[in-house]
Amino acid sequence: MEPLPEALRQFIADARVCRIASVRPNGEPHAVPVCPVFDGERVYVDVSRTGASGRALQAEPRMTALFDEYDDDWRNLKAVLLRCEAAAVPADRIEDVWTMIRRKFPQYGSVGWEPRLTLSLTVYDWRQWGILEAPQYQPE
Amino acid sequence: MEPLPEALRQFIADARVCRIASVRPNGEPHAVPVCPVFDGERVYVDVSRTGASGRALQAEPRMTALFDEYDDDWRNLKAVLLRCEAAAVPADRIEDVWTMIRRKFPQYGSVGWEPRLTLSLTVYDWRQWGILEAPQYQPE
Repeated sequence: MEPLPEALRQFIADARVCRIASVRPNGEPHAVPVCPVFDGERVYVDVSRTGASGRALQAEPRMTALFDEYDDDWRNLKAVLLRCEAAAVPADRIEDVWTMIRRKFPQYGSVGWEPRLTLSLTVYDWRQWGILEAPQYQPE
Repeated sequence: MEPLPEALRQFIADARVCRIASVRPNGEPHAVPVCPVFDGERVYVDVSRTGASGRALQAEPRMTALFDEYDDDWRNLKAVLLRCEAAAVPADRIEDVWTMIRRKFPQYGSVGWEPRLTLSLTVYDWRQWGILEAPQYQPE
């Protein structure tokens, strides 16, 4: 894979929300909005252990993270799609990851949410539109 | 399926963007932001015929449409997830559908985009959070 250019890394790191697509064990697609943290290498998100994304992991570790910003001026549409291998963050990494998560999203503290199933998403392919050069949307 | 309550129909109809999750023929999830039109019954979106969503349709007609609004005040998080059966809009319906699409998104005219693969998404199940009652996010 070509390394993620700095402008994309910044776009990903700044995002307050992204959407994760996964595949349910019955082969059906699923999607959920999540609050992502990016350490420059992996994306971390917390999902329900018993929800569709959590159950999806057991059958299909590939997940897709979509970071996009909509604008009614379509010359400003921006998106990064990350094709990823998902895995549960191992116990000895949970504290470090949650330090990053709580720093970016202090909301976790105020709503009293505890870690559920924290996923690390390792990127194996990506594409973008609207960020690196051509301002125009490139049809997928 | 329980009929979509009016508040959800309005949320879907008003959305400028939603994300469609599909499954590639190799079993991998895909996601793309699209500009949806809702006629009260089906969601219509236009995708590339040769892109991943278009190719996905050939192998797996189930697609999931995620309509969500992020807010840093997590009490205001809103989302509707529609589990759908996707199909290409038949030729004799394309004009009607594109009348709706161009009315909601006059941008299609200004960027000169023509219909590509126009999908109709028929909802067979749904869930929501943050719109109907409880303002708090319900973990999936």
